[in-house]
Amino acid sequence: MYDWIVYLSGEIHTDWREQIIEGAEEAELSMLFTGPITDHADSDECGEKLLGEEINPFWRDHKAAKINAIRTRKMIEEADLVVVRFGDKYKQWNAAFDAGYASALGKSTIILHAPELTHALKEVDAAAQAVAETPEQVVEILKYITRER
Amino acid sequence: MYDWIVYLSGEIHTDWREQIIEGAEEAELSMLFTGPITDHADSDECGEKLLGEEINPFWRDHKAAKINAIRTRKMIEEADLVVVRFGDKYKQWNAAFDAGYASALGKSTIILHAPELTHALKEVDAAAQAVAETPEQVVEILKYITRER
Amino acid sequence: MYDWIVYLSGEIHTDWREQIIEGAEEAELSMLFTGPITDHADSDECGEKLLGEEINPFWRDHKAAKINAIRTRKMIEEADLVVVRFGDKYKQWNAAFDAGYASALGKSTIILHAPELTHALKEVDAAAQAVAETPEQVVEILKYITRER
Amino acid sequence: MYDWIVYLSGEIHTDWREQIIEGAEEAELSMLFTGPITDHADSDECGEKLLGEEINPFWRDHKAAKINAIRTRKMIEEADLVVVRFGDKYKQWNAAFDAGYASALGKSTIILHAPELTHALKEVDAAAQAVAETPEQVVEILKYITRER
Amino acid sequence: MYDWIVYLSGEIHTDWREQIIEGAEEAELSMLFTGPITDHADSDECGEKLLGEEINPFWRDHKAAKINAIRTRKMIEEADLVVVRFGDKYKQWNAAFDAGYASALGKSTIILHAPELTHALKEVDAAAQAVAETPEQVVEILKYITRER
Amino acid sequence: MYDWIVYLSGEIHTDWREQIIEGAEEAELSMLFTGPITDHADSDECGEKLLGEEINPFWRDHKAAKINAIRTRKMIEEADLVVVRFGDKYKQWNAAFDAGYASALGKSTIILHAPELTHALKEVDAAAQAVAETPEQVVEILKYITRER
Amino acid sequence: MYDWIVYLSGEIHTDWREQIIEGAEEAELSMLFTGPITDHADSDECGEKLLGEEINPFWRDHKAAKINAIRTRKMIEEADLVVVRFGDKYKQWNAAFDAGYASALGKSTIILHAPELTHALKEVDAAAQAVAETPEQVVEILKYITRER
Amino acid sequence: MYDWIVYLSGEIHTDWREQIIEGAEEAELSMLFTGPITDHADSDECGEKLLGEEINPFWRDHKAAKINAIRTRKMIEEADLVVVRFGDKYKQWNAAFDAGYASALGKSTIILHAPELTHALKEVDAAAQAVAETPEQVVEILKYITRER
Repeated sequence: MYDWIVYLSGEIHTDWREQIIEGAEEAELSMLFTGPITDHADSDECGEKLLGEEINPFWRDHKAAKINAIRTRKMIEEADLVVVRFGDKYKQWNAAFDAGYASALGKSTIILHAPELTHALKEVDAAAQAVAETPEQVVEILKYITRER
Repeated sequence: MYDWIVYLSGEIHTDWREQIIEGAEEAELSMLFTGPITDHADSDECGEKLLGEEINPFWRDHKAAKINAIRTRKMIEEADLVVVRFGDKYKQWNAAFDAGYASALGKSTIILHAPELTHALKEVDAAAQAVAETPEQVVEILKYITRER
Repeated sequence: MYDWIVYLSGEIHTDWREQIIEGAEEAELSMLFTGPITDHADSDECGEKLLGEEINPFWRDHKAAKINAIRTRKMIEEADLVVVRFGDKYKQWNAAFDAGYASALGKSTIILHAPELTHALKEVDAAAQAVAETPEQVVEILKYITRER
Repeated sequence: MYDWIVYLSGEIHTDWREQIIEGAEEAELSMLFTGPITDHADSDECGEKLLGEEINPFWRDHKAAKINAIRTRKMIEEADLVVVRFGDKYKQWNAAFDAGYASALGKSTIILHAPELTHALKEVDAAAQAVAETPEQVVEILKYITRER
Repeated sequence: MYDWIVYLSGEIHTDWREQIIEGAEEAELSMLFTGPITDHADSDECGEKLLGEEINPFWRDHKAAKINAIRTRKMIEEADLVVVRFGDKYKQWNAAFDAGYASALGKSTIILHAPELTHALKEVDAAAQAVAETPEQVVEILKYITRER
Repeated sequence: MYDWIVYLSGEIHTDWREQIIEGAEEAELSMLFTGPITDHADSDECGEKLLGEEINPFWRDHKAAKINAIRTRKMIEEADLVVVRFGDKYKQWNAAFDAGYASALGKSTIILHAPELTHALKEVDAAAQAVAETPEQVVEILKYITRER
Repeated sequence: MYDWIVYLSGEIHTDWREQIIEGAEEAELSMLFTGPITDHADSDECGEKLLGEEINPFWRDHKAAKINAIRTRKMIEEADLVVVRFGDKYKQWNAAFDAGYASALGKSTIILHAPELTHALKEVDAAAQAVAETPEQVVEILKYITRER
Repeated sequence: MYDWIVYLSGEIHTDWREQIIEGAEEAELSMLFTGPITDHADSDECGEKLLGEEINPFWRDHKAAKINAIRTRKMIEEADLVVVRFGDKYKQWNAAFDAGYASALGKSTIILHAPELTHALKEVDAAAQAVAETPEQVVEILKYITRER
């Protein structure tokens, strides 16, 4: 048995993480899935809730983002593979930041997005080992790369 | 004399790079500014122009983005400081990717953007040493950090 | 399950370590807490006790500090997170040294101190992911960052 | 000819830096001396001056310290040798932080302080290559280590 | 007990991997053997099967090779020892690539090939810790290096 | 001005190196080209010539290959870009070894080969930033990536 | 529980390793001891026994030393602490080599030798965290550094 | 032009360094030679002369060796190639330490010694790129590896 750690970064409004995790469980892959706190409100408010209120919205965000980074940095650094999902809404700069962060550390990445985003994501895709369109494809890749010889 | 290399990443539709470079020149800073190819069309088409046509738009973008990365990776890796500018248009995922890439390498970053983008950029800002709103502010920081003791 | 190693550096005259460890245990966090030898006399005298007396006080301290560093370096290098506590007495340069050491290794740090020390600790705080005033806040951060998604 | 870069960290209220630099110049050493901004007021206020006022004193210090770190990190990372001076006043936690930072990067350090501080600085001294009491001693070390074979 | 991870790279048309693994099992070595997907057809076709057809044979190969690299890179990076087998057929550039990749990471390598290939493999052999002619020799080396003191 | 170091690895029987170097000179690129000793006989015999004869052909090759590696390793490690040329003859395992070595160090590579070799080189190409068919294409890439913004 | 890996390098003609291991076992330390093959004849002959005879004594030694290095490098790289013992006979250059190797990797070392060797070992001792004269002292250090806080 | 830095470590009682340097100068090699302070008395006494007397001979040596290491570490870390000479007298553990230090940093080494020392130096030689018997051979290697292609 040989373990993999897979970090699931990016979009938090659909159930793509669950699809991948369930697919991996069904296939009985020896794989640990990690990821950021995906509760949007908690993630935004953790700075103030944990360390006190801020009047200035910049510092409110700043405190929250730094606390979240304690978790995300460790998990990305320990991952063997980082899957980054881009959805059709929002700026999602944190997803692209994670992809860049993972690439600079020499991690393999799989980018998951609809074909319409291809041109806008070309630099992110260019640094990846695979570009998928559906969570099922990611599951198939995970099954393939962890196969017995 | 003590040299700095500053990489200017991100938005390519306004003259923010020129403003910073001119400000630094006026102040006679000993500083080398680097950055990506900022001609949008050339940057998009370099894959096909240099290595042959592609039918599939994904690979067309892929070839171009990889050639561009030969330059951008080297320059980010050699930079002492990476300034990343986010404008009000487009996805600009390459800018966030560069910020993540630079952060993982332990580079200092300065993020340059309008206050309206603060919430969307909170993870990127949280990893930065400074967040500025104008090129003039960046120039003032450059002047300050390179002062004689 | 996903394990964290948290190094508790700094002040040794109050029970802040116990408060954090107990708080984490109550919350059933999967976390290993490490730290220096906190018996002040033993820590000071270990050089002479283990390797023979010294006439010169400089070398007495030197031998002790180097033996202690075998432990503290390994533990800081293996930690995912370093919490550094500054109290209101003594110079506590070893605490600031640990914070600098951890930062240069790219570790996340949480600095724990009273608000009165803010100005004196600004460089140390600036390199941290969070600055807390109480052990309870640290426990809450630990609970938050290790939550299920 | 073979160049050295020597970073002078710590106490800013006496002329120890000038003594070392002048001593090195008199001896015609091929050496570049770097260091932080030593104007106390400028160093404290740079955050607000360069990037706008802050109501909260924590963030005022935070912005300043992070900008200063752009300079100090680069310079420590590029130094061959870091000299850290501890005086008899103030907390000087930034000096100890720099010593820890430099040590974790594998830099040689020379710690410069009065014998009275030996016990309080034992962990810092233990990680150093030399501990001196006067700037003249540092100059003599610099002359010795850069001698022709 | 002290574990080793041994990556078996290269030629996939004979049963040399099985011979080494069986030899190690008979000797009850505490060793985990890893390696690439050795089903030739699957390895070639995985790009198209997992992520969709490609008209251009270059991109067909490209997609497959990148997916395979997710596995092989991780496994080589985690290996304590990389055994690379060169057979008498085909170009086997991927085997030489793996040897170079492992060498640059500071991994010990054992190269396994017939004496006729000595001159052609001289650069690869020169970076290795041992050069063997038979799988039995590799097994004997594995037994020797994992012996009790 | 901003310098690049480009290592030219691989095939030594055609004048592809000269074509690239001349093309770069005509374009007045600020570029230093490095490479192995390309005199085949000297490269093979350097071990014996410099350090004494060997009866066993394995050690003859071994001594030569290790001396050559003093040069090639340094040059690859200092290169910004490694161009690896595969011709239509010989095993050329050293070229593939260099490509793997450069990739593991995070260097950008350009692989230069005829389309017929695509399948055999798929793992090498998959780790590259560009795959070219002619020296002219390489020159054009070099001109493009070193352009003013 | 928190594990340590301790590599025992150097002199192989007395039972110092056994003394340390037994002392650690009696104290129930959670510690894994590693070390080279200490059977002198096997260590010298492994090259020829495993990979065939050599006429030239240089290559006989060379083959053996390289096989032994597969084991020793891995074990030193994975050790938290390296204890190096110098006896009163032989050149023991491999012990000093191991100490230098461990130091460059940032490992803590303890050097174990009689006081008569102090001057000859001054460079080796200077890079160590502790210098002991007896195995008992090493055991006491191991007990001290692994104590509960 | 392409520069090399060559560190000359080890034996200080014959003129082997001068022979190599003169040979390189005659051949007009673009090469910087570095090395330790070779004045034996100065090297032994620098600790006391620069930083004050010591009663205990251990600390006298310790202070000296640590000051010398400021120089030798920097120079070894910046070298492209480390030549280590073993003579027929003394323990020369510092030479073996330097060889191990350089090897762990991935430096190429050339070991220079008489054939009688082959067995005692087998671990040191095994980590080297070349083993020479005379300074002339080293000069010839330097000339060869720096030749134009």
